[in-house]
Amino acid sequence: MTSPDPWPEIRGIAYGGDYTPEQWPKEVWREDVALMREAGVNLVSVGIFAWALIETSEGVFDFAWLDELLDLLHENGISVDLGTPTASPPAWFFAQHPDARVVTRDGVTLGFGARGMASHSSPAYRAAAVRIASALAERYGDHPAVVLWHVHNEYGVPVGEDYSEQSVRAFRGWLQDRYSTLDGLNAAWGTAFWGQHYGDWDHVGAPAAAPSVVNPAQRLDFARFTDHQLRQCFIAERDAIRVHASQPITTNFMANQSWTTDMWAWAREVDIVSDDHYLVAADPEGEIGLAIAADLSRSVGGGKPWILMEHSTSAVNWQPRNVAKRPGELARNSLTHLARGADAILFFQWRASRSGAEKFHSAMIPHAGTTSRVWREVVELGDALGRLDEVRGSRVAADVAVLWDFESFWAQDLEWRPSVDVSHAERIRSFYERLWRDGITVDFALPGQDLSGYKLVVAPAQYLLSAADAANLTRYVASGGTLVVSFFSAVVDENDAVPPGGFVAPLREALGVVVEEFLPLREGARHAVQWRGAASLLADAWQEDVVLEGAEAVGTYLDGPGAGGAAITRHPHGAGVGWYLSTRLDAAALRTVMSEVYADAGIVPAAHPEGLEVVVRRGDGADFAVAINHRDEPAAFAATGVELLTGSAVDGTLTVPGGGVAVVRLEPTS
Amino acid sequence: MTSPDPWPEIRGIAYGGDYTPEQWPKEVWREDVALMREAGVNLVSVGIFAWALIETSEGVFDFAWLDELLDLLHENGISVDLGTPTASPPAWFFAQHPDARVVTRDGVTLGFGARGMASHSSPAYRAAAVRIASALAERYGDHPAVVLWHVHNEYGVPVGEDYSEQSVRAFRGWLQDRYSTLDGLNAAWGTAFWGQHYGDWDHVGAPAAAPSVVNPAQRLDFARFTDHQLRQCFIAERDAIRVHASQPITTNFMANQSWTTDMWAWAREVDIVSDDHYLVAADPEGEIGLAIAADLSRSVGGGKPWILMEHSTSAVNWQPRNVAKRPGELARNSLTHLARGADAILFFQWRASRSGAEKFHSAMIPHAGTTSRVWREVVELGDALGRLDEVRGSRVAADVAVLWDFESFWAQDLEWRPSVDVSHAERIRSFYERLWRDGITVDFALPGQDLSGYKLVVAPAQYLLSAADAANLTRYVASGGTLVVSFFSAVVDENDAVPPGGFVAPLREALGVVVEEFLPLREGARHAVQWRGAASLLADAWQEDVVLEGAEAVGTYLDGPGAGGAAITRHPHGAGVGWYLSTRLDAAALRTVMSEVYADAGIVPAAHPEGLEVVVRRGDGADFAVAINHRDEPAAFAATGVELLTGSAVDGTLTVPGGGVAVVRLEPTS
Amino acid sequence: MTSPDPWPEIRGIAYGGDYTPEQWPKEVWREDVALMREAGVNLVSVGIFAWALIETSEGVFDFAWLDELLDLLHENGISVDLGTPTASPPAWFFAQHPDARVVTRDGVTLGFGARGMASHSSPAYRAAAVRIASALAERYGDHPAVVLWHVHNEYGVPVGEDYSEQSVRAFRGWLQDRYSTLDGLNAAWGTAFWGQHYGDWDHVGAPAAAPSVVNPAQRLDFARFTDHQLRQCFIAERDAIRVHASQPITTNFMANQSWTTDMWAWAREVDIVSDDHYLVAADPEGEIGLAIAADLSRSVGGGKPWILMEHSTSAVNWQPRNVAKRPGELARNSLTHLARGADAILFFQWRASRSGAEKFHSAMIPHAGTTSRVWREVVELGDALGRLDEVRGSRVAADVAVLWDFESFWAQDLEWRPSVDVSHAERIRSFYERLWRDGITVDFALPGQDLSGYKLVVAPAQYLLSAADAANLTRYVASGGTLVVSFFSAVVDENDAVPPGGFVAPLREALGVVVEEFLPLREGARHAVQWRGAASLLADAWQEDVVLEGAEAVGTYLDGPGAGGAAITRHPHGAGVGWYLSTRLDAAALRTVMSEVYADAGIVPAAHPEGLEVVVRRGDGADFAVAINHRDEPAAFAATGVELLTGSAVDGTLTVPGGGVAVVRLEPTS
Repeated sequence: MTSPDPWPEIRGIAYGGDYTPEQWPKEVWREDVALMREAGVNLVSVGIFAWALIETSEGVFDFAWLDELLDLLHENGISVDLGTPTASPPAWFFAQHPDARVVTRDGVTLGFGARGMASHSSPAYRAAAVRIASALAERYGDHPAVVLWHVHNEYGVPVGEDYSEQSVRAFRGWLQDRYSTLDGLNAAWGTAFWGQHYGDWDHVGAPAAAPSVVNPAQRLDFARFTDHQLRQCFIAERDAIRVHASQPITTNFMANQSWTTDMWAWAREVDIVSDDHYLVAADPEGEIGLAIAADLSRSVGGGKPWILMEHSTSAVNWQPRNVAKRPGELARNSLTHLARGADAILFFQWRASRSGAEKFHSAMIPHAGTTSRVWREVVELGDALGRLDEVRGSRVAADVAVLWDFESFWAQDLEWRPSVDVSHAERIRSFYERLWRDGITVDFALPGQDLSGYKLVVAPAQYLLSAADAANLTRYVASGGTLVVSFFSAVVDENDAVPPGGFVAPLREALGVVVEEFLPLREGARHAVQWRGAASLLADAWQEDVVLEGAEAVGTYLDGPGAGGAAITRHPHGAGVGWYLSTRLDAAALRTVMSEVYADAGIVPAAHPEGLEVVVRRGDGADFAVAINHRDEPAAFAATGVELLTGSAVDGTLTVPGGGVAVVRLEPTS
Repeated sequence: MTSPDPWPEIRGIAYGGDYTPEQWPKEVWREDVALMREAGVNLVSVGIFAWALIETSEGVFDFAWLDELLDLLHENGISVDLGTPTASPPAWFFAQHPDARVVTRDGVTLGFGARGMASHSSPAYRAAAVRIASALAERYGDHPAVVLWHVHNEYGVPVGEDYSEQSVRAFRGWLQDRYSTLDGLNAAWGTAFWGQHYGDWDHVGAPAAAPSVVNPAQRLDFARFTDHQLRQCFIAERDAIRVHASQPITTNFMANQSWTTDMWAWAREVDIVSDDHYLVAADPEGEIGLAIAADLSRSVGGGKPWILMEHSTSAVNWQPRNVAKRPGELARNSLTHLARGADAILFFQWRASRSGAEKFHSAMIPHAGTTSRVWREVVELGDALGRLDEVRGSRVAADVAVLWDFESFWAQDLEWRPSVDVSHAERIRSFYERLWRDGITVDFALPGQDLSGYKLVVAPAQYLLSAADAANLTRYVASGGTLVVSFFSAVVDENDAVPPGGFVAPLREALGVVVEEFLPLREGARHAVQWRGAASLLADAWQEDVVLEGAEAVGTYLDGPGAGGAAITRHPHGAGVGWYLSTRLDAAALRTVMSEVYADAGIVPAAHPEGLEVVVRRGDGADFAVAINHRDEPAAFAATGVELLTGSAVDGTLTVPGGGVAVVRLEPTS
Repeated sequence: MTSPDPWPEIRGIAYGGDYTPEQWPKEVWREDVALMREAGVNLVSVGIFAWALIETSEGVFDFAWLDELLDLLHENGISVDLGTPTASPPAWFFAQHPDARVVTRDGVTLGFGARGMASHSSPAYRAAAVRIASALAERYGDHPAVVLWHVHNEYGVPVGEDYSEQSVRAFRGWLQDRYSTLDGLNAAWGTAFWGQHYGDWDHVGAPAAAPSVVNPAQRLDFARFTDHQLRQCFIAERDAIRVHASQPITTNFMANQSWTTDMWAWAREVDIVSDDHYLVAADPEGEIGLAIAADLSRSVGGGKPWILMEHSTSAVNWQPRNVAKRPGELARNSLTHLARGADAILFFQWRASRSGAEKFHSAMIPHAGTTSRVWREVVELGDALGRLDEVRGSRVAADVAVLWDFESFWAQDLEWRPSVDVSHAERIRSFYERLWRDGITVDFALPGQDLSGYKLVVAPAQYLLSAADAANLTRYVASGGTLVVSFFSAVVDENDAVPPGGFVAPLREALGVVVEEFLPLREGARHAVQWRGAASLLADAWQEDVVLEGAEAVGTYLDGPGAGGAAITRHPHGAGVGWYLSTRLDAAALRTVMSEVYADAGIVPAAHPEGLEVVVRRGDGADFAVAINHRDEPAAFAATGVELLTGSAVDGTLTVPGGGVAVVRLEPTS
């Protein structure tokens, strides 16, 4: 079940972080490598923001410091993930190419002085990016320290969309490729509405500021175009590197924290998926968002192990209130990523920057230095990961898929939707959280992919659903699958157009319902749903006028505009069952409903104590149960084998201390 | 009492909506006309957003599809309100005339891709608008289907003010017309303040973004100019049509939902007033706002019947939470408009658009099709209206006028007023709501018009009041009228300048008070007013230091900064009485005060059950009582005659079912 | 202890306000001077917004009206503070020099029509400003009415920062002066972070809109540059005036209501400090903010008497809710300024403007005229001030210094700080308010100045602290001073870079602590601190991981992320004591802690009744206790001498009536 090893140079789990020695005098470099060895660091990412120091003016390169750095790291047994610095072109680049600057929807040209790439459609930028990537690959393609290439940084962050002239021109070309004819474009965009018909390709532009809401199909296509252009930038660099270098090539995603790029499409272009993840400080259960990010990173890569390219040892600096991690949280976060498929645990960054916009971001060596709690925990984590070599390459298996479709999210985020209370992110979190609390491991999936391996498919927010994808979901149910669809799904097709038959019609066979009308509620309104003719479930924000076409109404609106109508329906179809939930249930109500769904799907929730997260990675020789205890009290779970961090035998039950972690090599069950 | 019939082709009440067949294949057109006949539709508006499909490039026209459409409609007995499509110029127009695009206060040029007209001051736009209007009128002026011309769409929405170079130039010309000399302008604008004196006409500009608050008189004039320029656009198209066509010409207003245009001035230019109205979804009593819009539409047209050009069958799509209408609400809304003078009940739109920014807007045929509740109610409404032929042309009479002055609202909305809690919209609603609940039908009126026909005049928010208008109001009181003035009225003159004598001084004779100082309260502060030395009335937001000049203090501040001072005053003047209310009373308090005001004015409130709205239309042969029951319980009112929807006799009392409507042809009282 | 008299022409306390007769016909001028005499006005500021009326086009001057005005005032014994009108260049200036307009961070060019100067870096503006200042000084330098020059108006308000081309160019020059080499700039700005290295001076720009957060050291330098450029504008005018005139020259600051200018640096350039102050209407205890402004105005001038150039008789017009002053408040506010060192009490403005953006701003003559309460109080105040001649020139002494450092505030206000809940303004207010309630008079001070005269130094918000300033504070403690430092202080150096050793390290000797990590709390979280092992103090928003290096933990976190750690520490160092407060204590908690701090410092709080503010001015011959009673109940304090407003003897105790004021010439204590 394991994959070919992407980096044989590194034994076991990779450990380290972003390393920016260019910010420090050279005497610090020696101290750095000594401390890296003390902490068990075996992989660092370098060069990510060093363009101006490598190419000091156009075509003039200074590799001396980088030569010295790579040699130093190699001498000390530390492998290098070598970055291309194209996320932050130098000042001289923008001075020479002012038209390569990104322009906002409102026409503001974004200047130099922060970070952020040039226009993704600027020929000058693309040429410069390929030049620096080629130069690095040519020079370091054979350097023994280099085990991975790290192209750019977080494509699409902090800016994705670009309304510059260069981008508008490229958008026009992309549309010509997509639609061939203006008739095709006019039809797809529905330009007969509001008199937007185009008679000339040259009249088509980007969806910039306009007197009212811009054509939503145009905006959706601009989102697709943006994703495409960014990806082309990656591909150009990747291909330039490949000419000179054979190591795997990646670029770091920002799973569920940036929506600009379609990770599914990007994952097909990288040799190994890598991801950056930062906790949402305002969320007291940030570990759930973390699990989503980790599962998504694994899923887009088809289940292969992936790299946690960045996370933080403690607080970040860019949120309104940057909460520090509590003792042990650094290890719990790291082990959760590992549990969900990461074979590399890296941080931003090695040593806290004294200057600049991120000086208050935590690091492996904080400003307080090596006497600090954070440093002690960094060393302890390095030690722990060093005991987990055998986990490397093992995989996670799931019986449940949750649909995650960037195109749908882009479309749903456009203006003038029925209610501002309806959010795809909330829907994903609500269902994922339920499954997480029930101890059920999930993959994320696309609605059009082969879903036959899953007992249950959940569609929390599939607003946009093509006819083909709807047919795929319908076949899935007919073939015995259980499908749960939440409200405001199957509303539009790939052009953000309502399909014939109206809302939910593409899934009417699978679900046995269509929706006649949406019934959004006024702000703060709550209502109740009668469940199975008895219990009353609480819900809010949204109701629908559901028309039964064969489904059973297992929940009925007790009040609100839909009073008396079907709220929750169940529909046996072929060998499977389709569920439809037309309102926003609260957590307790969703538990009630999902317990019946699980029964339909033949899924048994884990019975772990609350707050104990257990995920199993399956290896060639053995399986590994990784356990993270998010509560302060000890918590036990059933396991037999050897706990790898302590080396102690586990005989039937393992008690994980409050706030602690454990990794058990499970004895094969007969 | 009825007017000359504007469209003899249509029998009785017109019924229908916006029809955009250009969004659908022709096979749907046949289905459409069949369904229109089923629903009793006799009037549809076409062509409103079809410029790009009619004039495919400059001066090149394609009338074939429109010929076919109009013939089809005519064959099926459906009349046409033919639109000029100038609210949305084609892409080719903006490509040829980029300087015709609207520019915001902050200098953002608004591009193509949404809707919204070009610069109202662009010569190229005006020429193009006249060209297409002329071409349509020339071709269809004699078409038997066409009974009405619909110029443009909702002037001033979504953009009114324009800061482009063309607009600035035109503003300068408009100012020269208004003031003749720079001395006149400097005096009117008070440019001695903050060193804004102008010595050259070329230095005068639009009130665009500046380091601080721009001269308020300049901003007020820019609002006047904007209204004027938009109206000139209408007049140019109207006059171009008139050359070729004799049908009545209108343009659809947005009463009390757009503040850009002065409906009083516009009503003088149209042959028949038409209005669009949409409920405010967040308002659980949206029917009161609806009644305001309907009364205003009637009032600006001098009481003549008017056209409800657009409303919705259910939810709209552009509010934060787009609440769907409940069963029966479509009929209640429609009958309320009819009760208040509408002789045509039309919807936006006939068939829901599959694509574009308004796909979630309800329609006569919703996405769910003709099996839906909405369609059933549309057919029922068509049937009901078909029973009301004899109501057509009858009129509404009112004893009470509420002042509504766009210039005053524009001025009051400018920056740096004493308190953000003071809103003219809130004041209008507060007094109107009181009168509505008391079953008193009102007209809206200008402060300078002949008011002698009214027993009571209410001035909820007459912030700007010219000396001439003040004199008119004073004469009104002297001649026996009762006048109620709410706080923050008579504060400035037509140049937004405080008049000699200070606040309220222009009305000191009529009211017997002046105001020495405004006493705005801190956020959330409430206070009490002692009424007639006994009852305590609740109020908030605002107090004043009122100086009595003959008036009696019938209410006195019990606490707050004005404690001990006069809060509510009454002043007999000549044959009438002037009331002044210097604070924001809550609903119960306003009821107490207004009951005394009614007594002064000789008005007796109706005694209808709460939630039963009854308005009488007076016809040549008979009067008609239209009743709308907004509550779920049945409600009765006194009437004798025939209920026209059912045909049943009414003998003394009619009980309207919960949520229902009724129209009674009243037996003439002897 | 008194200073040389800046204006011997005026006897005693100056009284008056801004006078803008250009807004009125000349018949009003005569009435004005008569009323000024009635009110005891002896000083008015004229000409501040009159550029367009004096220089009617470039180089063409019309002095006739100003000649007449100054003669009229002089004839009536009213002195003149003559303004240069450069805060509002004429329309003709901007028409001739459109590139002199200010540009915002987002690139919006700010136009004419409000108020606000041109670009501080525009050569054309500087030349024009010098031309008009010279012309005025040449003409009126010897005019007997003129006793003071008032350059410009509120530099830095309403706009300070300018992103125009002219400003960018000047910024580059300023940086070259500051850093000499690009290496210096790259090091100071830490451009190695995020790849911002500069290789050419021409590539360095202003910190305008960028894709992400701009380099904070660059932003801090831009704030310094802005302050510097504005000050150069002042200096140019001042020097131009000095060529022709010998009267003192000032410009009016906006202490603690504008943060654009560094008052310490500006105070060195003026002959006498003057300040504008307006109450924050939303603050029910606005008198505390007023006291801060007054103490700051005195402090920046080194304790010398200063001019209250503007305050209001009642409400202002630019706040959300402009609360009017209550009876007596005008006198209380004025006497508080006087108590804290003002020798001139002036208002904006003499007569309320009928037109323009500030027509709702109160004035000495309100719109209601001379029958009004406000006018009566203005006359009474003039009478009262006329009894205080002998107070003039006396000074205020303080034992406590509160650090106030504009550079630190600028730096702390930049983006991406650990918590949005941490605000320097809140910290200043919190500590100042404690001292104010305890009746302790304070000076404000810079961290680098000689502090040896103070028993106690409080550092509420010294986020930025240079090594030199840290050494100064450390010496202060070692020499016997008591120092209190609040959290988030000593965090960065003058380049916004974290110093070696981490947070608080520069003060580790003085405080006996360093801070390992910040522990910001989630929104709304509260926690408790155990004080001296017993009492529980309440706090919120922020905790820290404090490392003791010799200090005693006198307060310990009871809960929250820092539970068990030190919250409040005390550290004897040399002959003094250093306190560190690592959390945001509520008012009661701060009282508890500060009472121990006072004991360490040898300070005894005054025992005045709550709401009775007493400040002593020390004169050459006698001291004066000024008492302001902010409550409605009478309040007494110990004093012996003569109450100057009434002339009555005070023998041991003076009772100040509710809402009243008193000034006692104290009998010298033996």
